[in-house]
Amino acid sequence: MRDVAIIGVGLTQFGENWDQSIRDLFAEAALKAMESAKIEKVDSLYVGSMSSGLYAYQEHLGSLMADYVGQIGVPAVRIESACSSGGQAVRMGFLDVASGMHDIVLVGGVEKMWDVEDGTFVLATAADQEYEVYNGVTFPGLYAMMARVYMERYGLTREELAQVPIKNHKHGVNNPYAQFPFEIDLKAVLSSSMVADPLRLLDCSPITDGAACVILCPLERAKEFTDKFVKIRAVGSASGPIAFHDHKDLTRLDAVKLAGERAYKMAGLKPEDIDFVEVHDCFSIAEILVAEELGFFDYGTAGKAIAEGQATYGGKIVINPSGGLKAKGHPVGATGVAQIVEAYLQLTGQAGKRQVSNARFGMTQNMGGSGGSCVVHILEAM
Amino acid sequence: MRDVAIIGVGLTQFGENWDQSIRDLFAEAALKAMESAKIEKVDSLYVGSMSSGLYAYQEHLGSLMADYVGQIGVPAVRIESACSSGGQAVRMGFLDVASGMHDIVLVGGVEKMWDVEDGTFVLATAADQEYEVYNGVTFPGLYAMMARVYMERYGLTREELAQVPIKNHKHGVNNPYAQFPFEIDLKAVLSSSMVADPLRLLDCSPITDGAACVILCPLERAKEFTDKFVKIRAVGSASGPIAFHDHKDLTRLDAVKLAGERAYKMAGLKPEDIDFVEVHDCFSIAEILVAEELGFFDYGTAGKAIAEGQATYGGKIVINPSGGLKAKGHPVGATGVAQIVEAYLQLTGQAGKRQVSNARFGMTQNMGGSGGSCVVHILEAM
Repeated sequence: MRDVAIIGVGLTQFGENWDQSIRDLFAEAALKAMESAKIEKVDSLYVGSMSSGLYAYQEHLGSLMADYVGQIGVPAVRIESACSSGGQAVRMGFLDVASGMHDIVLVGGVEKMWDVEDGTFVLATAADQEYEVYNGVTFPGLYAMMARVYMERYGLTREELAQVPIKNHKHGVNNPYAQFPFEIDLKAVLSSSMVADPLRLLDCSPITDGAACVILCPLERAKEFTDKFVKIRAVGSASGPIAFHDHKDLTRLDAVKLAGERAYKMAGLKPEDIDFVEVHDCFSIAEILVAEELGFFDYGTAGKAIAEGQATYGGKIVINPSGGLKAKGHPVGATGVAQIVEAYLQLTGQAGKRQVSNARFGMTQNMGGSGGSCVVHILEAM
Repeated sequence: MRDVAIIGVGLTQFGENWDQSIRDLFAEAALKAMESAKIEKVDSLYVGSMSSGLYAYQEHLGSLMADYVGQIGVPAVRIESACSSGGQAVRMGFLDVASGMHDIVLVGGVEKMWDVEDGTFVLATAADQEYEVYNGVTFPGLYAMMARVYMERYGLTREELAQVPIKNHKHGVNNPYAQFPFEIDLKAVLSSSMVADPLRLLDCSPITDGAACVILCPLERAKEFTDKFVKIRAVGSASGPIAFHDHKDLTRLDAVKLAGERAYKMAGLKPEDIDFVEVHDCFSIAEILVAEELGFFDYGTAGKAIAEGQATYGGKIVINPSGGLKAKGHPVGATGVAQIVEAYLQLTGQAGKRQVSNARFGMTQNMGGSGGSCVVHILEAM
């Protein structure tokens, strides 16, 4: 396999983008990425999107976006794996370059979520319709069950759980693309609306419009385009049961553990080698469970460790320097690509006030459903 | 890149499968494919499906199917490119094996179309919603325009056009998995309901439930599993404008030409080397246009050539020995994989009464929308 580099990135503002259609969002991020990589033509294109059919009544996104960004003719497909669609699209782009099939590959993710009334119904299509959703449960309820069991088993308090979104909003203040770039305090979290006990509104990632793109090429060609590039050191992916009742333990996410192990093995690295990680904090409890599955903290300890400041600057590892899904926003298909964008910016020293100093290895972890799919990338500064 | 083989295939009956859900369909085809390849475990999984969100209110198909066929844990994603989703999924599986990332890859396609009332609305999400569909056009209308221009320009008669579905139904009689395994005559075509002038009901592929799967592995390992395997000699893919009004010529399908050229180049072959081809005859005119873009007939001549018997056994090339989308059925996400299944059966001498004798090279051509995407595979007998 050839080594693969990232040579350019692009993001739209995350938020309620009423004046942009799904194609406008993608094009803005794609053209920014192509400009940053100083290229005008790509060889192949991937679009991660969870549910453009239900959110925008538009399938066939690969070709639509290829056309709209001036690349008509190139092979182009959409990749879907619920909320991990973006990260999986990057994985497909990686395979495309690694195999030797194509050199310059545009990978983007996009979701236009604000144009439908019942976004929660659409998101629930990532769960098992026949066995879960028809019985009335949606994602806040599923993650609430994880939180309830974890808090009971490990003695995590409601106040400690609140420190996850508080920390992520603190990071998000320094992200100009974030949907909610402001701090929140304990009182705000604890007094926000109850969504699914014990999860309150400020434990939940928001509904977001947005897009993110990256440009990949063979590592050996990266210098032709830019001196700001990173290497994709490893990728690991795994499936898990999409039906939550098939999880063997309600506080464990087997697909995350498996994807992480595969990435560490491919990279020849360990958790202690990683300087920062972008994790899929769709709900505050998710960040805690994921941080444990990826080996950054022992089982049952991540909640308290995050509350004690071990997951921010100066701690054991910086988790979600971008602000995470909570503060940055969660346009589902775009999220996995946006995580890679953040890792690229950090590893090329372009992260501004949220820069993690001397970062050499960055990890991204993108997840679908209640742990039904996961893809982990490890990026290396060059 | 490593050479890639197909070592097993599986199909469900195509038709109105009221007693099977989308997961049942996929599992039946997948387990048949695994049984035929004599394997119990795969390393990676791809699912082609156009619109499981709108047809079955279920996204996240990669992990769902991995779980349902006993392969939980493997990397699994869904690939979407409208009606070429299945063929594109095979392309992704090919890259996965060719790159060296995984050895045993299950690729399937599935669509469960009969469970919703307005299937035509769902199919129209493969066209440009904002510029085409909102103005009232759906696919029968788009292909009717192609037919009208072609007939006017090249003098093709309505009776000659009817010979495409008549020929495909004749082939389909010998396909035990076909939705409509019976012959139709000229009178039946010309007296069937008008759908979009000049296209009548029997010019149109049907609404179909179904699934198809193949197992890929490195060519050098194929003999470990079976003596019935074929080589994927080449794959070519291209995007085109998904909005029909952006086609430069209404009788041309640029993405098909480009995908075909790429496949021929990769294979080092020419149209005259191909013994049979499965083409995407979503409407009768489509088979004619595609046969020209792939170089089997000169522009403007394929309609008459097919009417004269040049595309059946004993002619210049056998087009759609399976019965094509028209007689076999068109479960959109499954179609591209089912084409590969047919080519595998032909090239391993397992096609029964529809066997193309002495076939060495078989081609498949799978298309999205009104030519918005295309993927072409060339398979070689071993």
